[in-house]
Amino acid sequence: MKALVTVMPKPSVLDPQGAAAAEAIRHHGLEKIGRVRIGKVIEIELPEPADEKTLHEIARDLLSNPVIEDYDLKISEI
Amino acid sequence: MKALVTVMPKPSVLDPQGAAAAEAIRHHGLEKIGRVRIGKVIEIELPEPADEKTLHEIARDLLSNPVIEDYDLKISEI
Repeated sequence: MKALVTVMPKPSVLDPQGAAAAEAIRHHGLEKIGRVRIGKVIEIELPEPADEKTLHEIARDLLSNPVIEDYDLKISEI
Repeated sequence: MKALVTVMPKPSVLDPQGAAAAEAIRHHGLEKIGRVRIGKVIEIELPEPADEKTLHEIARDLLSNPVIEDYDLKISEI
């Protein structure tokens, strides 16, 4: 089992890293792009099934900052 | 359209940030976890369809470091 936590800046929060990447992408030749946002992804290997509530707690309290970030938790069987 | 680029450290590369997160997760009460790896995800809004080859170039040359990272490119219609 694997838990995949994706953490993205909230839409209302400025993402200077994303803005810098957008600038670099435009410079690279792809001019017609919209917003670019950069987040992180945390892949946790689970040798035994884990409680989903605990995983949500960990994603919210430990792996993201709920003030400026949203998280998404996906659990896969592989 | 959106392009979603996920960049992860190569399996053979040490990921100290992931190791630190694993330690924090264990401390939080979820003791039976395996490896934790941390990567980044870049979401690019595309107002018009973009050439997939160009997107691969951008993912490889601009958004990742091919020496220590692997990338995955997904293009979604939404």
